[in-house]
Amino acid sequence: MQPRSLVVGFDADDTLWHNESIFEKVHERYRALLAHYHDAATVDRTLFATEMRNLELYGYGVKGFTLSAIETAIALTAGRIRAEEIQQLIDLGREMLAHPVDLLEGVSDVLAEVSREHRVLLITKGDLRDQERKLTKSGLLAHFQHVEIVSEKDEGSYANILRRHGIDPARFLMVGNSIKSDILPVLALGGCGAHVPYHLTWAAERVEAVPDAPGRFFQLGSIRELGALIEKIA
Amino acid sequence: MQPRSLVVGFDADDTLWHNESIFEKVHERYRALLAHYHDAATVDRTLFATEMRNLELYGYGVKGFTLSAIETAIALTAGRIRAEEIQQLIDLGREMLAHPVDLLEGVSDVLAEVSREHRVLLITKGDLRDQERKLTKSGLLAHFQHVEIVSEKDEGSYANILRRHGIDPARFLMVGNSIKSDILPVLALGGCGAHVPYHLTWAAERVEAVPDAPGRFFQLGSIRELGALIEKIA
Repeated sequence: MQPRSLVVGFDADDTLWHNESIFEKVHERYRALLAHYHDAATVDRTLFATEMRNLELYGYGVKGFTLSAIETAIALTAGRIRAEEIQQLIDLGREMLAHPVDLLEGVSDVLAEVSREHRVLLITKGDLRDQERKLTKSGLLAHFQHVEIVSEKDEGSYANILRRHGIDPARFLMVGNSIKSDILPVLALGGCGAHVPYHLTWAAERVEAVPDAPGRFFQLGSIRELGALIEKIA
Repeated sequence: MQPRSLVVGFDADDTLWHNESIFEKVHERYRALLAHYHDAATVDRTLFATEMRNLELYGYGVKGFTLSAIETAIALTAGRIRAEEIQQLIDLGREMLAHPVDLLEGVSDVLAEVSREHRVLLITKGDLRDQERKLTKSGLLAHFQHVEIVSEKDEGSYANILRRHGIDPARFLMVGNSIKSDILPVLALGGCGAHVPYHLTWAAERVEAVPDAPGRFFQLGSIRELGALIEKIA
């Protein structure tokens, strides 16, 4: 390892592989299932409210989403939804869990390049088994020195990870699609953040704030720009 | 740390606090809900079969259990179950997640005693957020040097944990209520196992095998016997 080397953390969903696009397709089918009862906007708004109310208890992931979708469907139909339609929701959840992992463009090349010269970590939140399965399916596992699956990505969880691995925050760069979960907490700890937007952002991850950390926050158009950025920082 | 010191791993559910007893009460209410349709044995057998079929996809934990319980109820009633009854199952799952943590007798004393002289780890499988929440509620967190929540407790996952923390298997003792998940994989790696049975064992954790590892496998009647065992081993 070079003395100028960095530790680079990568988010997973919507940074390395498509995820929100799978949810978006499921939302379309969910709206269609409830179209006899409510317009799409009401369905979306009510499902999101249920998810947010259940987040503390369920955490992130497909199983909690499925339970919230069933609960919302029962409420929005005043109990008139049929058991076979609820079974369709369970089947939708299962499809999501079994979905192939589609890597985003450039990810394999960039990970191979970055991991040659720097320590590379995967830091993701969500369901333990589902994230492990996606990582295995992705074929990317070998690039990562450590994999950290956490229940929430906030200052506390990043601080734990950095301490546990003896990483100086000033030499840590986090790469991800969520300003809220990947960038702001790392900047607050004195680290660097590279934001690579995905074309869809889940409402719960949207923030108004534009990070104000000159020289530590970097807005990228594509993950392919990461190599040049790391050369500049290192 | 003494040169003779051990690293002691503790399982969580049904080793430190009651868990299977909560599931057992939920099973009773589940049987009552379906009593119009099927006898208790059929309900139990079918639910267990659904859980086992879904285990690879869902992993362990309350959310997967709830989804399997809904799926089983729809199947066993040929779709005649009402939405409000499905909502009762969702509520049951939520009650389980919000359930208070009841420590088993002696656990606080024994952890305080063991952690004074030995490195102590928590190694548990299941849902990330649910296990973290239970650990926080338990008040036991301060005793553990590391907490490892894994999606499966097998030889591979124990080997990873021991390697990551630089632990010599010959100096590692795992304490837990499941022969299958807490004892056999650790014995296979050359470590020691102390089995502290709980009065209920989930069918998926039952094994016929009695571990054959003289001097490394120890059958305890209660966790209160652990201090004396550790003195003997160390």
